[in-house]
Amino acid sequence: MSTRPPTEVSPLVHKARSPLPTQQKMTFKFTLVALAFQLVLLILFGTITNYGKFSSPPGKNDTLKAENDIRLYYPMFQDVHVMIYIGFGFLMTFLKKYGYGAVGYNFFIASLVTQWGTIVSGCFNQLYSEGKKHIELSIQTLVTAEFAAATVLITYGAVLGKVSRLQLLVIGILEVVFYAINELVAIEFLKFSDAGGSILIHTFGAYFGLALSRVLHNKDAHGSPKEGSNYHSDLFAMIGTVFLWMYWPSFNAALVAPDYVAQHRSVINTYFSLSAACVTTFAISPIFQRRAGKWRLSMVHVQNATLAGGVAIGTASNMSVSPWGALLIGCCAGGLSTVGYAYLTPFLTKYTKTHDTCGVNNLHGMPGILGAIAGAIAAAHANVDKYGSEGLKSLFPAMVGDGRTAKVQAGYQLAGLAVALGIAIIGGIITGFVVRWQIFDPPAREQMYDDEDFWEVPTEDDVEAPNAGSSLIVGDDKV
Amino acid sequence: MSTRPPTEVSPLVHKARSPLPTQQKMTFKFTLVALAFQLVLLILFGTITNYGKFSSPPGKNDTLKAENDIRLYYPMFQDVHVMIYIGFGFLMTFLKKYGYGAVGYNFFIASLVTQWGTIVSGCFNQLYSEGKKHIELSIQTLVTAEFAAATVLITYGAVLGKVSRLQLLVIGILEVVFYAINELVAIEFLKFSDAGGSILIHTFGAYFGLALSRVLHNKDAHGSPKEGSNYHSDLFAMIGTVFLWMYWPSFNAALVAPDYVAQHRSVINTYFSLSAACVTTFAISPIFQRRAGKWRLSMVHVQNATLAGGVAIGTASNMSVSPWGALLIGCCAGGLSTVGYAYLTPFLTKYTKTHDTCGVNNLHGMPGILGAIAGAIAAAHANVDKYGSEGLKSLFPAMVGDGRTAKVQAGYQLAGLAVALGIAIIGGIITGFVVRWQIFDPPAREQMYDDEDFWEVPTEDDVEAPNAGSSLIVGDDKV
Amino acid sequence: MSTRPPTEVSPLVHKARSPLPTQQKMTFKFTLVALAFQLVLLILFGTITNYGKFSSPPGKNDTLKAENDIRLYYPMFQDVHVMIYIGFGFLMTFLKKYGYGAVGYNFFIASLVTQWGTIVSGCFNQLYSEGKKHIELSIQTLVTAEFAAATVLITYGAVLGKVSRLQLLVIGILEVVFYAINELVAIEFLKFSDAGGSILIHTFGAYFGLALSRVLHNKDAHGSPKEGSNYHSDLFAMIGTVFLWMYWPSFNAALVAPDYVAQHRSVINTYFSLSAACVTTFAISPIFQRRAGKWRLSMVHVQNATLAGGVAIGTASNMSVSPWGALLIGCCAGGLSTVGYAYLTPFLTKYTKTHDTCGVNNLHGMPGILGAIAGAIAAAHANVDKYGSEGLKSLFPAMVGDGRTAKVQAGYQLAGLAVALGIAIIGGIITGFVVRWQIFDPPAREQMYDDEDFWEVPTEDDVEAPNAGSSLIVGDDKV
Repeated sequence: MSTRPPTEVSPLVHKARSPLPTQQKMTFKFTLVALAFQLVLLILFGTITNYGKFSSPPGKNDTLKAENDIRLYYPMFQDVHVMIYIGFGFLMTFLKKYGYGAVGYNFFIASLVTQWGTIVSGCFNQLYSEGKKHIELSIQTLVTAEFAAATVLITYGAVLGKVSRLQLLVIGILEVVFYAINELVAIEFLKFSDAGGSILIHTFGAYFGLALSRVLHNKDAHGSPKEGSNYHSDLFAMIGTVFLWMYWPSFNAALVAPDYVAQHRSVINTYFSLSAACVTTFAISPIFQRRAGKWRLSMVHVQNATLAGGVAIGTASNMSVSPWGALLIGCCAGGLSTVGYAYLTPFLTKYTKTHDTCGVNNLHGMPGILGAIAGAIAAAHANVDKYGSEGLKSLFPAMVGDGRTAKVQAGYQLAGLAVALGIAIIGGIITGFVVRWQIFDPPAREQMYDDEDFWEVPTEDDVEAPNAGSSLIVGDDKV
Repeated sequence: MSTRPPTEVSPLVHKARSPLPTQQKMTFKFTLVALAFQLVLLILFGTITNYGKFSSPPGKNDTLKAENDIRLYYPMFQDVHVMIYIGFGFLMTFLKKYGYGAVGYNFFIASLVTQWGTIVSGCFNQLYSEGKKHIELSIQTLVTAEFAAATVLITYGAVLGKVSRLQLLVIGILEVVFYAINELVAIEFLKFSDAGGSILIHTFGAYFGLALSRVLHNKDAHGSPKEGSNYHSDLFAMIGTVFLWMYWPSFNAALVAPDYVAQHRSVINTYFSLSAACVTTFAISPIFQRRAGKWRLSMVHVQNATLAGGVAIGTASNMSVSPWGALLIGCCAGGLSTVGYAYLTPFLTKYTKTHDTCGVNNLHGMPGILGAIAGAIAAAHANVDKYGSEGLKSLFPAMVGDGRTAKVQAGYQLAGLAVALGIAIIGGIITGFVVRWQIFDPPAREQMYDDEDFWEVPTEDDVEAPNAGSSLIVGDDKV
Repeated sequence: MSTRPPTEVSPLVHKARSPLPTQQKMTFKFTLVALAFQLVLLILFGTITNYGKFSSPPGKNDTLKAENDIRLYYPMFQDVHVMIYIGFGFLMTFLKKYGYGAVGYNFFIASLVTQWGTIVSGCFNQLYSEGKKHIELSIQTLVTAEFAAATVLITYGAVLGKVSRLQLLVIGILEVVFYAINELVAIEFLKFSDAGGSILIHTFGAYFGLALSRVLHNKDAHGSPKEGSNYHSDLFAMIGTVFLWMYWPSFNAALVAPDYVAQHRSVINTYFSLSAACVTTFAISPIFQRRAGKWRLSMVHVQNATLAGGVAIGTASNMSVSPWGALLIGCCAGGLSTVGYAYLTPFLTKYTKTHDTCGVNNLHGMPGILGAIAGAIAAAHANVDKYGSEGLKSLFPAMVGDGRTAKVQAGYQLAGLAVALGIAIIGGIITGFVVRWQIFDPPAREQMYDDEDFWEVPTEDDVEAPNAGSSLIVGDDKV
C-alpha cells in the first residue's frame, strides 16, 4: 500500500468534513417523484389499458388460440426478460464500487420503463394506429415494453455512475417518448424491417446516450480511479455478458412469430453471428494489450465486443443472409467493437468531451449502424423467389402492399437509420439539458462511480471474507 | 483494523481452546439420517410410484397428448426450478460468512424435499383423493413437489444460520407433512382458489418458520456481528433476487394450465404487480435509511420487498383483477414489506423473541395475507359474466359444483387463510419442540451464521484475490 | 501473513526480472491461428452449409412444421446453451486466480467448437450418412454442436489452468474430429442408444482429457498453491453447478423428441437421479473431511458429485428404469463420485502422473461408465411389452430393423463403451503429443492456474471492495 497517494485517503476524510448539503433534499425528491409517477401509471393503467383478447375473462376467443399465444411467445419472452434484468444489470457491475447502483438502478428503471413503455407504445401503436379503445395487454406487449427498457438501459450504459437516480428516472421517462415517436415513424411511414432492433433499439439507445453524455459533460467525471473493475466485479459482469449472449437469439426472434420460417432463420443467424463475434474478439483483443512483451486479453473486450454480433445481425436476422453471411457480420461486428474500445472510446473522451462509461458506442452504436447497413444490403436483394410471397409479405410488407422495389426498400432501411440517429441525438440533447438542471441533483465528482453515498454499504468489518479477519489479525499481531 | 474490539479476536482463539465436544457425533448423525431417509425414499418410490400416463412405456396414450404435456408444462416448470435452486439459494447468500451454508443447504434440502413432497402430496392427492393405485409421476407432480420445497425454503429463511443441517433435515421432513395436510384440507374441504400459493405456500411457510423460530429462540442468536452482509455477498444475493423476480410469473401460472386464458392473465397480473412492487420499494426505501442527512437505499429492501408483489398477487393472479388492480396490489405489497423490514422485524426480535433472519414475515408472511385478502375480494366479485361458465368452473369449481355464491366463496377464501395460519403455527411449534432437542445438535452461538465449523473453508492464503497477495507482501516488506 | 513461505514472494520478483521470452510470440500465434481458423470456418459455411428446410426462405415446407420445430426444440436447446456457457464456464471459476481463464476460455472455445462441430458432425451425419448436398442447419444441429462443445469442455476440465489458450484451441479442433468419428461409429455401425451421452459425451470427454493430461504431465503442475479456491470463487462456481444441475433434464431429453413419451420419461428419470445424487453427496461428503473432531462438507464434492446423477442416468434416461431405478442410479453416482474425489484423484496424481484439475474422472468418467452399464442392463430387459412397438423402434432401432435380441443389444451398448474409451484414449494421446510441442507455448509453472500473464488483471488498488481500502489505510496509519 506504500504507493497509494495520500489523496486517496482524503475523500473519506473530506466527506466526513463537508457533507453535501443537497443530499437529503435530493433523495426526498426521488421518493416523491417515483411515487407520484407510479401513481400516474396506476391511473393510466386503470383508464386506458385492459387485458388482451387471450386473457380476457369471458373467454371470448377460443382457448386454442390463447394456448398458442402462451406457447409461442412465453419462452422467448422469458429469455428477453432475463437479458433485461440479469443481462444488463450484471453487465454493468464491472465497476468495483458501483455494483449496487449497476444492478439496483437497472432493476428499478427497467421496472418503471416497462410500465411506462406499455402505455406510450400502446397509445401510439394501438390507440392511434389501430384505433382501439384500450391498450390490450398481452405477452407481445410485454416484449415490446422490454424492448423500450433495453433502449433506456443502453443509454444508461453511457452515463453509468455519472447520474443520480433522480436524473436516471427523468431520463427513462423522457427517452421512452422519443423512442416511441421513432418507432411510430418506422412503422407508419418508413415501413422498414428491423426484427432485432439494430436501428430502433441499439443505434437509438447508444446515440441518445452519447448525446446525453455530451450535454452532461463534466471534466471531473473522467479519470476517476473508481472508474475501474476489480477481479470479482469482472466476474459478476461476466454473468451479465453470458446471459445476454446466450439469449440474444430470443431477443432477435421473439416478435418474428408467427412467421415461423423466418423465426427459425433468425435464431440460426443470430447464433452464428454471436459465435463469430466471440471468436474474433478473443483473437484480436490481445493485439491492443501488448505490454512488457505480453499480449493479454482484456475483460472489457470479452464482456462487450462478444455481444456485438447479436447487435449487428439484428435487422438482418430474419432475412436470408446465408449462414456464412451471419458469420461474416459477426466477425466484422466483433472486430469493429474491439477496435472501438481500444481506440475510439479514449478518442471520444479526450477530443469530443463525450465520455461513455460502458462503451455503448462500441457495443451498440457502431454495430447497430453496421446492422442497419447489412439489413439494407439484404433488403436490396429481396425477391419472391428468395422468400416466397408469404415470406416477403411478412418481412417487407411495403414491397407487397405499396409496390416498393427491393432497391427502394433498401433506401427506406437506410432512411430509417438516419431518422433514428436524428431523433436519438436530438432527444438525447433535449433530455441532457433537462436533467443537467441542478434540481435533479447531479452527483459531485467524488460521488461518481460510487455506491457509498446512495446505498447502505456494509461497514469495513463487513467486507472481509471468512478468515480474512484472522489473517489480518495475525498480521497485526506480528507487527 | 485498530478499531476492531479485542472481543472480535477471541472467538477464534476460543474455538481453538475448546472444540465443541458434540461436533463429530453430530455430523455422523447427519450422514446416517440423511442416508437412511434417502433409502426410505428409494423404497417408497419403488413401491408406490410409477411413471404417469404420458411417460408410461407402452405408449398407452397417444403421443400427441404427451407432446402437449411437455410443451405446456416444461418451460414453466424449468422457471420454477430455477427459482428454487438459484433463486432461494442465492437470495440467502447475503450473510457474509454463511454463503456455503445458504446455497449449499438450500440445494440439499430442496433435493430431499422434492422427493419427499412427491410421496406425501402424492399419497394425499392421488392415492387418497383420487383413489389411484400408484402415485403417477409427471411434470405437474414435479411442479407440485417444488411448491412443497418452496414452502420449506421460506421457513428456512426464518431460521437461516441458526439451525444445524441435521435440524434442517428434520424440519424439512416434518414440515412437508403439515404442508400436505393443509393442502388436502384446501382441496378436499375448503375448495378455495390459490393459484400462486399466497396462502398455501407463502403464508404457510412464513408463519411455520416464525413459530419455529420462536420455539428455538436463543437470546444469543440475535446481535451477532456475523449476521450481516458484505459488498460481494450482497451482489450474490441479487442473483437470487432477480431470478426469483423474473420467473415469478411462471410460478403463479405454472399449474393454471390448461385454462390458457387464465394462465395468460396470471402472467400479466404477476408481471405488473412485481414491477409496481419494485418501483415502490425503491421509492420508499430511502425514507427509512436517513443518516447524516443522506437518504440511502437499502439492499435488504431491494433484495426482498421487490419480490412481495409476486407473493401478494399469488391467489388473485389468475382472477380478473384488472391491470391497475395488479399494480395496486404490487404497490401495497412493496410498501408493506419495506415498512416491515424497517420497523416490524426489529420489533418482533426485541419484544416477541421471534428472530427472523431473512425477514420472511415481510417478504412472504404479510404479503401472503394481503394476497389472501385480495383473492377473497376478487372472489366476492366473481360471476359468469366476468369469467364465462368454463372460466368460472376452472377458477372456483365449488361455485359451479356446490352452488356457492360469490360471497360464500370469498368466505371460504378467508377460511383457507385462517386454517393455513393455524396449521402452520401449530406445525411450527411442534417441529420446534422436536428439533430443539439436543440430539439434533443445535449450533452454539459462535457457530451461528458461520460456515467455518461445517464446511471446508479455504485457509487464509486462499482468500486473496489476484495481486492482493503481492499488495500485502509489499506492505509487509515496508514494515 | 507471517506463515507465508518466502518462496511465495519470489515468483513475482522472478517475473519482473525475467520476462518469458516466448510470451509475445505465443500470443501473436494465437491471434493468427484463431483468425485463420475462423476464416476457414467462414469458407466452409459458405460452401457446404445451408439453412435447413424449416428456415429455408421459399417456405418449401408448411409453416406448421416449422412452428412445431421451434416449439419442440428451442426451449430445451436454450437450457443446454445455458449449461455450456454458464454451467461449464462458472463451474470452473473455483480456482482463485483463474476465474477469467475459466469463464473466458470456456466462452471462446465453446463458440469455436460449436461452429467446427457443426461442420464436422454435419459432414459425417448429413453429407456422408444421409447423402445430402449441404449440411442443413436447424435447431437440432445447434444442439448437436453444443454436445460436441460439452465434450471438449469436459476435456478442458482435466487440463484446466495447465494449457495455454493456443494449446486449448488446437485441442478443441482435434478433439471434435475424434468425437465425430466415434459418433459415426456409434450411429452407423454399433447402433447403440445413448440419449444423454453418458458414453459419447461424458466418458469420451473425460478419458480423452485424462489421456491428454497424462501426456502433458509436468511434475511442476501438481502442488501449486494457486490450485485452490477462495470463498467467493467457490460461490461463483456454485452458479455453474446449479445451472448445470437444474437444466440437465433438458440435456438428456433434448434430442429424444419427437418420441414424446420417452422424452417425458427422460425428464423424470434425470430429475430424480440428480436429486438422489445431491442428497447422497451431502450425506457422505463429511465422512472424508474429518479433521479436529469435526465432520465438514466439501465444496468440491457439492460442486461436482451432485451432478454425477445427471451423467449416470444419461444413457438410460429415456429407458424404462422405473423411478426407483433412477434414484438408485443417482445414489450410486453421487457416492462413487464423492469417493473418487476423496481417494482416486490424489491416487491418480501421485501414482499414475495423471493430474486432473477439475476431477473429470469423478464427475464424468466413472459416472459415465456407470451410466453405460445401467443402459446395457436396461437394454437387456427391453421388449415390445415394455415400450410398445413404436417406442422400441425409437429407442433401439436395431432391435426392430436388424432383429437384434435384447441381450445382443446390451452387448452392443457395452461395445459402444469400449470403442468410446479406445478412441478417446488414443485421441487424447495423439492430441497430447501434438500440443505438447513447444510451438504451442505451454505455460511455465508459475503461470499455471493464474490469469496474470494472460489477461489484463486490475492492479492492486482495484481489488479492494468498498471500504477495504480505508480499512487497510487505517492499519497502515497505525503502523
